[in-house]
Amino acid sequence: MIAKKMLALGKSDSAIRAIAAYGDARRSEIGSENVFDFSIGNPNVPTPEKVKNTLIELLQNEESLALHGYTAAPGAMAARKAAAEQESKRAGYDIPAESIYLTSGASSSLSIVLSALVSEGEKVAVLAPFFPEYKVFAENAGAEILIVPPAGDDMQPFMAAFENAVEQGVAAVIINSPNNPSGAILSEQTLRVMSKILQAAQEEKGKSIYLIADEPYRELVYGDVTVPFVPNIYPNTIVCYSYSKSLSLPGERLGYIMVPPCVKDSAEVFAAVCGAGRALGYVCAPSLMQHMLAQCADVRPDITSYAKNRDTLYDALSGMGFDCVKPDGAFYLFVKAPKGDSAGEFCEKAKKFEILLVPSDSFGVAGYARLAYCVSEKTAENSLPAFRKLAEEYGL
Amino acid sequence: MIAKKMLALGKSDSAIRAIAAYGDARRSEIGSENVFDFSIGNPNVPTPEKVKNTLIELLQNEESLALHGYTAAPGAMAARKAAAEQESKRAGYDIPAESIYLTSGASSSLSIVLSALVSEGEKVAVLAPFFPEYKVFAENAGAEILIVPPAGDDMQPFMAAFENAVEQGVAAVIINSPNNPSGAILSEQTLRVMSKILQAAQEEKGKSIYLIADEPYRELVYGDVTVPFVPNIYPNTIVCYSYSKSLSLPGERLGYIMVPPCVKDSAEVFAAVCGAGRALGYVCAPSLMQHMLAQCADVRPDITSYAKNRDTLYDALSGMGFDCVKPDGAFYLFVKAPKGDSAGEFCEKAKKFEILLVPSDSFGVAGYARLAYCVSEKTAENSLPAFRKLAEEYGL
Repeated sequence: MIAKKMLALGKSDSAIRAIAAYGDARRSEIGSENVFDFSIGNPNVPTPEKVKNTLIELLQNEESLALHGYTAAPGAMAARKAAAEQESKRAGYDIPAESIYLTSGASSSLSIVLSALVSEGEKVAVLAPFFPEYKVFAENAGAEILIVPPAGDDMQPFMAAFENAVEQGVAAVIINSPNNPSGAILSEQTLRVMSKILQAAQEEKGKSIYLIADEPYRELVYGDVTVPFVPNIYPNTIVCYSYSKSLSLPGERLGYIMVPPCVKDSAEVFAAVCGAGRALGYVCAPSLMQHMLAQCADVRPDITSYAKNRDTLYDALSGMGFDCVKPDGAFYLFVKAPKGDSAGEFCEKAKKFEILLVPSDSFGVAGYARLAYCVSEKTAENSLPAFRKLAEEYGL
Repeated sequence: MIAKKMLALGKSDSAIRAIAAYGDARRSEIGSENVFDFSIGNPNVPTPEKVKNTLIELLQNEESLALHGYTAAPGAMAARKAAAEQESKRAGYDIPAESIYLTSGASSSLSIVLSALVSEGEKVAVLAPFFPEYKVFAENAGAEILIVPPAGDDMQPFMAAFENAVEQGVAAVIINSPNNPSGAILSEQTLRVMSKILQAAQEEKGKSIYLIADEPYRELVYGDVTVPFVPNIYPNTIVCYSYSKSLSLPGERLGYIMVPPCVKDSAEVFAAVCGAGRALGYVCAPSLMQHMLAQCADVRPDITSYAKNRDTLYDALSGMGFDCVKPDGAFYLFVKAPKGDSAGEFCEKAKKFEILLVPSDSFGVAGYARLAYCVSEKTAENSLPAFRKLAEEYGL
């Protein structure tokens, strides 16, 4: 019998894809230079040269069976070592390669971790705004999500609501910093308060509560801001990482789950991750990409153009009177709908000026729009007159 | 809370991996030329030149963001079209590209299809011998498997048992032809009888029973044998395919699910497949490989050395007095344990002569061993004296 839940999921078009489809239609109607499409979070900075050259060299010089053969399920040791070395630098101590389980990208990391660590009927807390697939993955693991709203315009969590969710009993908490869709980074101060609450609850309830840190935007930060190494603040933290954004290869599906030694029963947690990967049909991360990673884990993205767009758009829009969350990372600007408009109303008005934004409702908060500034600098610059008209429409 | 099922799965080492580890140890002790390791079903024929050259050309000439960017979840249209063209040739009529959902290999295809088409508490029939992960994927979808034993040494199903399983009520049936571990192909005659039973049950019960045809070995067939296009025999058939064996790139994770238009409610089935892929954390098949596929879907493997090894080993072992299933496809030889030995006893005795085989128990039948002849021709030749000693040990 066709599984009803899967059918519903397959039929529900994500809001983002619907806007992207509208953008495609609009481009063919009025020309792509006249559409200011900020809807999709696709990197627009080319894949680093070292990655490209490494892939070509591997294909030219390595024996095909070794290059394209199965690796062990958690990944080829050389690739795991390379990833662990980078994590060790962040941690300030040695993270063994055995802590790393390579995955087919961030979505598979999250889906696997939730299936491994959450059981039927349990609860998972997510901090709004959040990536909508968290709900899908948590529900697939049989869990229900509890949404913790942000406290204010800096998008740090409303701590009383967080404490309340933890009190209700959660098996895990998902954080995403730098955040999609707001670009906000959870400050060390915020993380310390969350850690205190979680540690107290663990003691009180006598069981582990896992913090799942989803960090695909970790290397995309601006100014002198740094992203804390979360396991050093809350030891029961599992890190999910993806190379999609940092190496600009989202279609290749490469990431990892790190279960650092400080996680309680880390060997058991790692085994459950292996089991969940197996149950969901994952065999190994794509092997050519693993071999590339063994040589390229230290490559950092060139974020010059993201940084420029961020400044251009944040400064201009703020200057026009829009309220924006100042993004410290990722490539998203979260803009408040003016004059009490709903997110949907705001995005519809923007559409009139060929500006495509994503309403925040899909991310679990009302009254904002997400602007993905991973576009050309020209598109960012050229969009400003349209935003000015939008500001005028609102009487800002 | 760590999910108990996932922990158990993660800790249970597959029998095959355990033997492979033993083989590694043995090779370092006595030299790899003295170990006859037939345990792993890894292709040993190099990846075709056209595939290699296409990958290099794509990397050299294509724009990185297009090459490594997200594709639509069911795959890039050019790759889906290329796969559909090949299926159309088999079908004898046009299969639209929209019937193809590209996946990260055979395991993900099966895991996704079972999650899409089977609901909690339903039953799935599998024909023994069968790939052990079928059970894992079916159970992850909440289903229980019913094992249909083979009728005799030709490894066609025991039809009364099949009918009985279908009578008990099954949501789906998985077939794997050519078969891992036996190398047997389900004959058209067998498929016609199965189809009759399934069609009668569908009518009687008033609901769809899906036949899931897992066909990664479809292109690895010997002599003038052909693998039937199953949907032409039983319309409610979903085909799962993988390029792992045919293009010798098992680590790259590339395959597809085909829901042909003859499947009842095919649009709904396809939507459920999309939903299940999403719920399990799949985003798209690796994009570079998809772009390669668009140009290489017509590449066929060079099976000369598999065919040679099959003849060498089947002829020699039969000549020595071993009972073997004559393999028409794949790269496995299924050898009966002599003198009423159990599969385990047989494999242990073989080990004494440095021959590594996999006992059949993991595949759901007793009393056989799987010999994977995807090894060098030299290894196959050199193993014969060891097999002779094994035959002598049994007094054959």
